[in-house]
Amino acid sequence: MKRTLGTCYYPEHWPEALWPQDAERMVEAGLTWVRIGEFCWSRIEPKEGEFNWDWLDRSIEVLGNAGLKVVLGTPTATPPKWVADKHPDMFAVDIDGKPRGFGSRRHYCFSHAGYFAESERIVRAFAERYGQNPHVAAWQTDNEYGCHDTIYSYSASAKTAFQAWLSAEFGGDIDALNRAWGNVFWSMEYNNFSQIELPNLTVTEPNPAHVHAFKRFSSDQVVAYNKMQVDTIRAQSDRPIAHNYMGRVTDFDHYKVGDDLEIASWDSYPLGFLEDRVEASDEHKRAFAHQGDPDFQAFHHDIYRAVGKGRWWIMEQQPGPVNWAPYNPSPLPGMVRFWTWEAFAHGAEAVCYFRWRQAPFAQEQLHAGMLRPDSQDAEAIVEARQVRDELQSAPDVAPAQAPIALVFDYEAEWSWAVQPQGQGLSYFQLVFDTYRALRKLGQSVDIVPPSCTDLTGYSAIFAPGIMHLNDDLKQALSAADGTAVYGPRTAARDAHFNIPNPLPPAIDGLDIVVSRLETLRPDMPIALNGKGHVIRYFEELNTSEPIMMETSANQPVLVGQNGQLYCAAWLDDDGMMAMVEQVCEISGITTVELPIGVRRRETATETFWFNHNSHASETPVGTIGAADFVKRSRN
Amino acid sequence: MKRTLGTCYYPEHWPEALWPQDAERMVEAGLTWVRIGEFCWSRIEPKEGEFNWDWLDRSIEVLGNAGLKVVLGTPTATPPKWVADKHPDMFAVDIDGKPRGFGSRRHYCFSHAGYFAESERIVRAFAERYGQNPHVAAWQTDNEYGCHDTIYSYSASAKTAFQAWLSAEFGGDIDALNRAWGNVFWSMEYNNFSQIELPNLTVTEPNPAHVHAFKRFSSDQVVAYNKMQVDTIRAQSDRPIAHNYMGRVTDFDHYKVGDDLEIASWDSYPLGFLEDRVEASDEHKRAFAHQGDPDFQAFHHDIYRAVGKGRWWIMEQQPGPVNWAPYNPSPLPGMVRFWTWEAFAHGAEAVCYFRWRQAPFAQEQLHAGMLRPDSQDAEAIVEARQVRDELQSAPDVAPAQAPIALVFDYEAEWSWAVQPQGQGLSYFQLVFDTYRALRKLGQSVDIVPPSCTDLTGYSAIFAPGIMHLNDDLKQALSAADGTAVYGPRTAARDAHFNIPNPLPPAIDGLDIVVSRLETLRPDMPIALNGKGHVIRYFEELNTSEPIMMETSANQPVLVGQNGQLYCAAWLDDDGMMAMVEQVCEISGITTVELPIGVRRRETATETFWFNHNSHASETPVGTIGAADFVKRSRN
Amino acid sequence: MKRTLGTCYYPEHWPEALWPQDAERMVEAGLTWVRIGEFCWSRIEPKEGEFNWDWLDRSIEVLGNAGLKVVLGTPTATPPKWVADKHPDMFAVDIDGKPRGFGSRRHYCFSHAGYFAESERIVRAFAERYGQNPHVAAWQTDNEYGCHDTIYSYSASAKTAFQAWLSAEFGGDIDALNRAWGNVFWSMEYNNFSQIELPNLTVTEPNPAHVHAFKRFSSDQVVAYNKMQVDTIRAQSDRPIAHNYMGRVTDFDHYKVGDDLEIASWDSYPLGFLEDRVEASDEHKRAFAHQGDPDFQAFHHDIYRAVGKGRWWIMEQQPGPVNWAPYNPSPLPGMVRFWTWEAFAHGAEAVCYFRWRQAPFAQEQLHAGMLRPDSQDAEAIVEARQVRDELQSAPDVAPAQAPIALVFDYEAEWSWAVQPQGQGLSYFQLVFDTYRALRKLGQSVDIVPPSCTDLTGYSAIFAPGIMHLNDDLKQALSAADGTAVYGPRTAARDAHFNIPNPLPPAIDGLDIVVSRLETLRPDMPIALNGKGHVIRYFEELNTSEPIMMETSANQPVLVGQNGQLYCAAWLDDDGMMAMVEQVCEISGITTVELPIGVRRRETATETFWFNHNSHASETPVGTIGAADFVKRSRN
Repeated sequence: MKRTLGTCYYPEHWPEALWPQDAERMVEAGLTWVRIGEFCWSRIEPKEGEFNWDWLDRSIEVLGNAGLKVVLGTPTATPPKWVADKHPDMFAVDIDGKPRGFGSRRHYCFSHAGYFAESERIVRAFAERYGQNPHVAAWQTDNEYGCHDTIYSYSASAKTAFQAWLSAEFGGDIDALNRAWGNVFWSMEYNNFSQIELPNLTVTEPNPAHVHAFKRFSSDQVVAYNKMQVDTIRAQSDRPIAHNYMGRVTDFDHYKVGDDLEIASWDSYPLGFLEDRVEASDEHKRAFAHQGDPDFQAFHHDIYRAVGKGRWWIMEQQPGPVNWAPYNPSPLPGMVRFWTWEAFAHGAEAVCYFRWRQAPFAQEQLHAGMLRPDSQDAEAIVEARQVRDELQSAPDVAPAQAPIALVFDYEAEWSWAVQPQGQGLSYFQLVFDTYRALRKLGQSVDIVPPSCTDLTGYSAIFAPGIMHLNDDLKQALSAADGTAVYGPRTAARDAHFNIPNPLPPAIDGLDIVVSRLETLRPDMPIALNGKGHVIRYFEELNTSEPIMMETSANQPVLVGQNGQLYCAAWLDDDGMMAMVEQVCEISGITTVELPIGVRRRETATETFWFNHNSHASETPVGTIGAADFVKRSRN
Repeated sequence: MKRTLGTCYYPEHWPEALWPQDAERMVEAGLTWVRIGEFCWSRIEPKEGEFNWDWLDRSIEVLGNAGLKVVLGTPTATPPKWVADKHPDMFAVDIDGKPRGFGSRRHYCFSHAGYFAESERIVRAFAERYGQNPHVAAWQTDNEYGCHDTIYSYSASAKTAFQAWLSAEFGGDIDALNRAWGNVFWSMEYNNFSQIELPNLTVTEPNPAHVHAFKRFSSDQVVAYNKMQVDTIRAQSDRPIAHNYMGRVTDFDHYKVGDDLEIASWDSYPLGFLEDRVEASDEHKRAFAHQGDPDFQAFHHDIYRAVGKGRWWIMEQQPGPVNWAPYNPSPLPGMVRFWTWEAFAHGAEAVCYFRWRQAPFAQEQLHAGMLRPDSQDAEAIVEARQVRDELQSAPDVAPAQAPIALVFDYEAEWSWAVQPQGQGLSYFQLVFDTYRALRKLGQSVDIVPPSCTDLTGYSAIFAPGIMHLNDDLKQALSAADGTAVYGPRTAARDAHFNIPNPLPPAIDGLDIVVSRLETLRPDMPIALNGKGHVIRYFEELNTSEPIMMETSANQPVLVGQNGQLYCAAWLDDDGMMAMVEQVCEISGITTVELPIGVRRRETATETFWFNHNSHASETPVGTIGAADFVKRSRN
Repeated sequence: MKRTLGTCYYPEHWPEALWPQDAERMVEAGLTWVRIGEFCWSRIEPKEGEFNWDWLDRSIEVLGNAGLKVVLGTPTATPPKWVADKHPDMFAVDIDGKPRGFGSRRHYCFSHAGYFAESERIVRAFAERYGQNPHVAAWQTDNEYGCHDTIYSYSASAKTAFQAWLSAEFGGDIDALNRAWGNVFWSMEYNNFSQIELPNLTVTEPNPAHVHAFKRFSSDQVVAYNKMQVDTIRAQSDRPIAHNYMGRVTDFDHYKVGDDLEIASWDSYPLGFLEDRVEASDEHKRAFAHQGDPDFQAFHHDIYRAVGKGRWWIMEQQPGPVNWAPYNPSPLPGMVRFWTWEAFAHGAEAVCYFRWRQAPFAQEQLHAGMLRPDSQDAEAIVEARQVRDELQSAPDVAPAQAPIALVFDYEAEWSWAVQPQGQGLSYFQLVFDTYRALRKLGQSVDIVPPSCTDLTGYSAIFAPGIMHLNDDLKQALSAADGTAVYGPRTAARDAHFNIPNPLPPAIDGLDIVVSRLETLRPDMPIALNGKGHVIRYFEELNTSEPIMMETSANQPVLVGQNGQLYCAAWLDDDGMMAMVEQVCEISGITTVELPIGVRRRETATETFWFNHNSHASETPVGTIGAADFVKRSRN
C-alpha cells in the first residue's frame, strides 16, 4: 500500500464557489484523501426530519471529480440544538453532578437511549445515501471519543445502564457483587441492583472495586456505541471504517473499539500535547517547544498500529500553531514534513493535515491550517508539497516486527488511577518511561495488547504495571522465547480489584512475594548500586531469585532468571535506562545510546534517524540538521 | 474648584448620641463631605412598604448643620432579606450554576426584572424624600458595581434578557446571528433566539463569539441598571450623581456608565490591591507592601478622570490596614497623606476616607477607620489633619492635557479574556505595562476611551491590544498629529469576533499582515537586538515597513514610519522601556528615567515628585524622604 | 492500671473458621483488647427490622473465651443503603450545596431527625443485646466524628436545626441576634428566626458572627448526637464508653463530647499525619517520613489525656504503611514499638493496633495490618510481641502533673478560621508551635481546656490566641501561681465575635491596648533583638509594661510583669524558642535544649528519652539508636 497524504475539509464553512478551487489545490499539493462531514448535522438536518442533502451531494461530487477520495464522518459528535431540546437529559453529567450542556461539542452521554437512537438514525441516513457513493472511500465514526473528558458520565441514564451492566456481569446475583467487591467492609452491601449508585459524590473515596467496575462499564458503553455506528454503516457500505482517536486519552479500551473497525487513526498535535499532556521538566518542554516530545507521537503511532491490527493513519496532523494548549508556539520550519515522515516510519498508510483552511470564526479560529484564513498558502502546504515530491521515490508501507514488545493495557491504566497509592503515579507514565528508555537505546518497539496470546519473535517483552494479569497473557508471557519483564504491581489485583491470595505476583517459575509496598515523596530518591534511583514507589520482596539490580542498601530491585524478571520499583530516568539496557543485553538485543533528541526507527525496508532537536546533532549516521532526518535502506 | 476631603459614615451603626460629636470631629479634621446611606435599606424599610425615615432625616440634619455636605447613596447593593424572600430567584447565578444568595452584599442579578423594579422603587423613595434636601449635595448610585465578581450571572433571568438583547442586536434574524458567530462550525446553529443558551457549563470552550456577546450584554445590563437609578434621581434632584468604581474591575464598560453620571469616583485601597490585584514579583510586593504599587493607583486615577470626563473623586481612601487581602499590612507613617496628595496631583476634586470609625462588628471589623472602634484617633485622622493644613495654601484643581495618550478599552479586555491564546495574557496587564514604562520615564499620561474621536495635542498615542478597532478610533489614530503606536493584536477581530479578511491589522498606510502568531511559555524569552526580550506572545509579520526594533534573529518587533508604528510582541520590562523610549524620542517627548519607586506628575500649576519607597531616594529635585513627595510650581 | 495492648477486628470480614485461630494469635501476641462491630450494620440488620445477631454473638463468644476483652462499637458511621433509601435527605450537604451520598462512610448529617432516630434505635438494639455480655468490657460510640470533614452540613435539616439553636441562644428575640451580630452592617437584619440562612453560597464572605455561631452550633450537634448514644448505652450497660477521635480534627469541641464519656481514645497514624496534616518544610518531612513528626502524636496524646480527664487510649495505632496519605511510606523497623511506648509515656492505658489482618478488598486494601492478607505475620505483630515482653516489667499507668500547662481551646480554633486576617494563620498551628518549642527544651506539658478553673501547681501557663476568653479562665489565669503568657489575639472578640470596648486584651493588671494589627506576607520577617523573627502577624501595642522582647526597631513583642506576660506577635521557630525559654527561666523551670528529633517525657515513675531520628543521636543520657528510646526510673 502506498503512503498517502490528505486533509480535513468543511465545505459547509465556505462559499460553494470556493470548492472547486480548493479541490484543485488539494490535488496539486499531492493529497489523496479529504475527510468531510463530521460536524455538519445542523446543515444536513436543520430541523427534525427535514433533510438537506444537496450541498453535501455536490461537495462530494466536486471533490471526487477532482480526483480526491472522500472519508465521510458521521456527525454524531455535534448534535444540533433541536436534538438537545428534544432530549433535555441527553448530556453527560460531570463528577460534581453538573450536566455538560449545549454550546460546543461532544455534548452527549453514551448511555442515553434516546440519543443512541438518534445517532443510529442519522448514521443510517448517511450510510443509505453515501454507502455506495463512488467517491466515498472510507468512513469515520463520530470524532475523537473521549476528547474533553467525555467518557465518564454520572447521569441518571448512566446509572440505570450501569446497574444493568452489573446485573449482567454478576448474573443477577447481588450477593455475588457484594462478595466480589467486599461491600461488607463499610456496610456498603446492596440488596438489589437498583440500589447501586454511581461512584461520585461520596463522603470519602468510594470502594475501588466500584470505581473500577464503573470505568470498565464506561469503556464498554463507548464500544457499544461505536459498534452500533459500524453495524449501521456496514449494512449499507463495504468501505473501510475508521475512528480518529486522540493522544493520551485512556478512558476507554481502544483495542476493543478497534476490533470493530478496519483502520485505526489518530489526531497528532505534537506541540499541543507537549504543553498539555506530556509530563516533563520545564527544561525538556523548553527544548522541544517548537518540535514536540521526541517519543510521545511515536508511542501513539505504535499504540495505534496495534489498535488497527497493522492498519493505521494520522487523520489529523498539526500543521502550525494550535489554539488549545496552555501555550501555542509555532513549529520549527520543517516540522510538518518531519512529523509526516515520522508517521510513515512507524507504518502509517496516510497522513491527513488538519485542517485545509484556517477558519476565521468560532472555537478554532487560531488553529492553523494548510491555508491561511485569506486562502494564501500557510507553511504546512509548502511542506506537504515537499513530502509529495519525496514520496515519489518512497517504498510502500512495509511494517516489520520489532525485536521488543511492550504491553499497553487500558484496564491497568484505570486500575492505577483508581488506586495510585501515591501522588503522581500513573500507569501511562510507567509504560511511557519504559518506551522512552528503549528509544533512547535506539530500539524499535511493538506495542501489544493484553489480549495478546502469541509473543513469538520478540527477544524481550516488557509488561510493567499490569495490575490485573489475565490468564492468556500470563500464559503467553510464560511461554515467550524472549525475556519477559514483569513488575511493579504485576497481578496485584484480581478481576474485581481484590488482592489475590497467594499474594502477588504469583507467577509460575518466579519465587517472589510482594510482602509490603511503600510510596514516597518525589524528593526522596533511593540510590541504586550503579546509576539511577528508585523513586516514588517501591515493593518489598520476599524472594530467592537472583538479584540483577539492587539499592545501595541491598534491597532487591530487579530479580529473576531463565527469561523471567521482576522489577519491584519505579525507576528514575537513569535507573530505567540501566534496567532496560541490562534486559536488552541478556536478551541479545544490540543497543546504541543515541544523542539527546535523536531517535531511530526501522521498517522492513528502511532505517530512519530523526533529529528532534532545534540544532544539528551528531549521530552514528553523521550530522543531521535541526528538525530533520535521514533515511537509509535497510540491509 | 477646591480640593476637598471627606469620609464615609454609617449613622445607623452608632448610637444617635454620638452623631453630633462625630460631625464636630469631622469638621475639625477639615472634612467637607460625608457619604452616608448606601447600605441602610433594612433600617429605612424593615418590612415591605413600612418606611422609617426619621433617623435618616435626623442624621442628615445633624451632619448638615455641623457644616458637612452629604453624599447620599442609594441602598440597592444590600437588599434586605424580605426582598430576597419576595424574589427568591433574584440572585446572580455563578458559572457553575450555583445561586449566590443572601448573607453579605451585591446579592442580585442585574437582569432580574423584579429586583430592577424594587430598586427603582426604593431609589425613587430616596430621591423624593431627599432630592431637594439642602444638605444633600450629591448622590451615589449603588456601591461598587462588579465588586465580588458580580457582573456575570448565569440565571434564568439573564438568559431571557440575553436572548432579547441578541434579538435586538440582530434585528430578530437568527440566521444573521448564526452567520456572525460562525455557528455552523460545530453544528451550533440555532433555529430561533429562545434556543440560545448562556455560555457556561459547555463540554469544552463555547464559541468565543458567544462569550464575547455575553460579556457585552452583561456590561449593558449594568449600564441600564445604573441609568434607571440616575433617571429616577434626576426626576427629583439636580445634584450631581456619582458611582464609586473599584480597582481592576473590568467586567463592565465604565465609560458607558460614566456617560450617565456627572462625577466618577473610585475606592482606592493601595495595600489591598498590591496583594490582591497587582501582578508582580514577590520582591516587588515586599518592597511596596506598606506603600502600595507605585503605578496602580495613578493608573486608576487617570482612567477615572477619563470616565468622569474630567471630574473625579476618591470616594473611599484606605486609611490603615484593611481586612480583605491575602495579607493586610499597615501603611507606612505618612502614606494616607501621600495617597491623598497623589490623587490631587491626578486631578481629584475630593478624597474621602473609608470609613469614619472602625466597626467592631460584622464583615469589616478589621478594616481600619479614621477612628478606632473605641472612638480614639487612629493614624488616618492625624494625617488627614495634616492635609487639611496643607490644603490652605494649595491651588484649585487644575488639570492639564498630558503629552501622551494611552487608550484603554474595556471591550478589548473582554476580547483578550475570551481568547488569550496563552496563559497569563491579559489586556489590562498589557496596557498597565505600557503605562508603567511611561511613568518610569517621568511621563504624565492621559487615558482615553476607544470612543475618542479627537487626539489633538498628543505627541504620542499608545493603543496596544485593541482587538476590535472601531472606525472612529481608527480614523482618529490615523489623523493624529502625534505618533500612533498599534499592536499587538490591533484590529485582530471584527465586531462579532471573527478574523477579518484582509488579515489584521489592515491599517491604512501600514503595509503589515500578521501572517501567524505564537504564544510561548513564560520561561522562553526571545532576545531583542538591544535591551529586553519578547515574551509570551509574538506575531509573525509580512511587512515592507522600516524596522525600528527586532529580535537578535532579525524578526521584526516594532515597524512603521510616518507617525504610525506597530508592535508585534509582548515585551518584558526592559523591552517595553526601550520601545516606549524610542517612541518618545521620535515624538519629541523629553524623558527622564526615574529611580525605582519614584514618579512624577504634572498638573497645570504644579509638578509633583512622589517617592513610593520605604527609604529616602535621590531624585532630580533632590532627596525625598520615605513615603514623601515634593511639589514644585510649574514654570 | 496496667498498660495494655489490643487490636481492631472485623469478624464479618473473615470466614468463621478463622476466628478461633485469630483469637488465639491475638492472645499469644499479648493483646488484651479487641474492638469490633463499628461498621457491621448491614450484617446485623440487612433489611429494616430484620436482625441477624447470631454471627456477632458467636464472634464475641469466641474472642471472649480466648481471653480477650471486647470493645463494642456502635455501627452508626456506616448506615446501610436501605437506611439511606428510607431517608433520602439524610446526607450532609457540602458548602457548595452538593449532598454527600452513599458509597463510603460517615454519610449522615448530624441534624437529620430521621437518622438521629435510626441511630438511637440501632444503638439501643446493640446495648440491649450486649450491655451485660460478660465479654463486652467497653463501648465505642460511632467512629471518628469529623473524619472526612463531616461536621459541617449545609442541609435543610441543618438549617432548621440552626434556626432553632439560635432561637434558643437568643431567647427567641430576633432583634437581640441582629444586635449581637451587627446585622445592620449590610442590611443583613432578619425579621424572624425562620429567615436565617446557613452561611454558605453568599456573594462575598458572610458575617463572621454568623459563621462563628454556625461552627458552635455544628459542634453542639455532635455533642448531642454522641450524648444520645451514651444515654442509650448507659440505660443498658455499666461498661465504660469511649469514642475514637482523630488527629487534627478540630471542627467540634472534643472536651464537650469527652465530658459524656469515661475514656478518650484516638487513632494515631504518625506517617499519614506527617504527609497530610503537619505543616512543615519539605526537609522536615523527608527527615521524618518513616518515623512521623516528633511532636504531633505527643501533642494529641496530651490533648486527649485532657479530653479523657486523665483516662485515654490509642484505639487505632498505625502498624505499617497506610493507604490514605499523599504518599505512604513504610515505618522504620522499630517504629511500631516506639509509638506504643511513646503513648504509654504520655499516660495511655491501652494501645490497640489497627487492624488485625490487612483486608484484601475495599477502600483500605493497602492499609497494613498486624497480619498480611495471607495471614502471615506482618512487621507490626513482631514488634507488638516485643512490647508484650517489655511490659512484663513495666510500672502501671502513673500520670504526673507537668510543670507547664498549655491551653487548647476549640472555639479559638474556629475563631481564627473565621477570621485569620492573613493567609496561613491557624490557631492550631500557633498552639502546636508553642508546644514544639517547649518539647525541644525538654519539657513535659499538660494541655488544659478553656473551662479550666484551677491552675494550681503549674509554674507556667501558656494561653496563646484565645480570641474569646471566658470569665472563668480569665480569672484562673489571673489567680495562677505560675507565669501566665497571653497573646496574640487574647480576648480580641466577645462571645458573639465583636471587638470589645475597651479594646483588647483588657486584662486586669496589664496596661496593654492592641491599637492596631497587621498581617504580613510570609517572606517578610521582622528581626527581633536577639534570635528569631516576628512573622505573619503583629500587633501594635499601647503599653507601659516592661518590654521583655522587642524587634530591632524596638517595637514591643513580649511585655508584662508580675507573672503576667503578653506576646504581641507570631514568632518563627527561633523566636518562639527564645520566648518560651525566657518564660521558663523567669518561672523557675529548668530547660535543656535537646538534639533535633529527640524528646523527653516524664511520668510519675519514669523519664523517657525518645530519638525520632533515622540515625543514632547523642543525648544527655547517652547515645540512642535510630527509632529507639531509653527509659530511666525517675528519682
